[in-house]
Amino acid sequence: MATQHVLAARRLPRTVDHSADMVAVDDFKAAFRNHPAGVSIITAQGPSGPVGLTASSVFSVSANPPTLVFSLSAHSSAAPAIREAGTVVVHLLGADQVDLATTFATGGIDRFEDTSMWSRLVTGEPVLPRASAWLRGRIVSEMNVGDSTVVAVQVLQVKSQSAAHPDAEQARPLVYHNRSWHSLSADSMVM
Amino acid sequence: MATQHVLAARRLPRTVDHSADMVAVDDFKAAFRNHPAGVSIITAQGPSGPVGLTASSVFSVSANPPTLVFSLSAHSSAAPAIREAGTVVVHLLGADQVDLATTFATGGIDRFEDTSMWSRLVTGEPVLPRASAWLRGRIVSEMNVGDSTVVAVQVLQVKSQSAAHPDAEQARPLVYHNRSWHSLSADSMVM
Repeated sequence: MATQHVLAARRLPRTVDHSADMVAVDDFKAAFRNHPAGVSIITAQGPSGPVGLTASSVFSVSANPPTLVFSLSAHSSAAPAIREAGTVVVHLLGADQVDLATTFATGGIDRFEDTSMWSRLVTGEPVLPRASAWLRGRIVSEMNVGDSTVVAVQVLQVKSQSAAHPDAEQARPLVYHNRSWHSLSADSMVM
Repeated sequence: MATQHVLAARRLPRTVDHSADMVAVDDFKAAFRNHPAGVSIITAQGPSGPVGLTASSVFSVSANPPTLVFSLSAHSSAAPAIREAGTVVVHLLGADQVDLATTFATGGIDRFEDTSMWSRLVTGEPVLPRASAWLRGRIVSEMNVGDSTVVAVQVLQVKSQSAAHPDAEQARPLVYHNRSWHSLSADSMVM
């Protein structure tokens, strides 16, 4: 990302509201701890080898063209390499993939040490074939927000396990909530 | 938003990859249908009165300053009024608030018809007091992505029901997955 063009995103011309200082960061964090999210692993081929991290911030933002977004914290060691790589693989995890989620959320380890867990796409990115689904794409825009960067990825390739193994257990998604792992099933339905 | 300043977000200088045309939009949508998400309602005081919509794209992006993001589809009738309002209330929903989620996801109705469901903050925004938590904030940046806009909101005020009514049922969050409503509990935990 040596050169970058300014783009469609914009900051509104309102002045900064310093009453924000009065919001307790703890209250903000507590509210979102109770806000559940699907779990993903983002991988890329960085300049020094494969990098990856577990994220609970992935969502589909546009179908035309197919685009997803996620956020990268400035505190994440893998973030610079992911942004520099330019292309990424976003893995959507199932309930039987907690081990992967934990590995890619753990600091100070080689997350790619177990070479039975991953392979490489012909396009060069590391991929975790056990993931319920993965999407390969290209970073097309970025927005800096506080101490994070929101990254938009245009999807170029989609692979779902459910097409190959259409059994119910594999389709059960992994959910992160209140520092715990959950899954969904007929029993968790409401209404 | 009559005047807007260009900002921190940027498009990378890579050329558009036309192999994206080969991605089946149906495969992309199917992969994300199986990606669960917490459920929120976003409200604002638009130029012609209160507006609101149900969203499954809200996440916390930065704690410093406290900032969340969500996406607004260009196809959403409420989107222009929300962007113009400049300040919004983001409600994080619990399992006992499916009726609210459904109302604010239904087109062609007056979503604010039932005046027992909402009130107004002293700052002017409509608020749904039954929501498990709500956060009021100011739109600080936007990024256009495909047919949607990703909006970043700096949070100015947080209110959680759990502080007032710390019972377990109210804390159970609402999850949207595969076109169904789910909740989480001790029974849905994995590992």
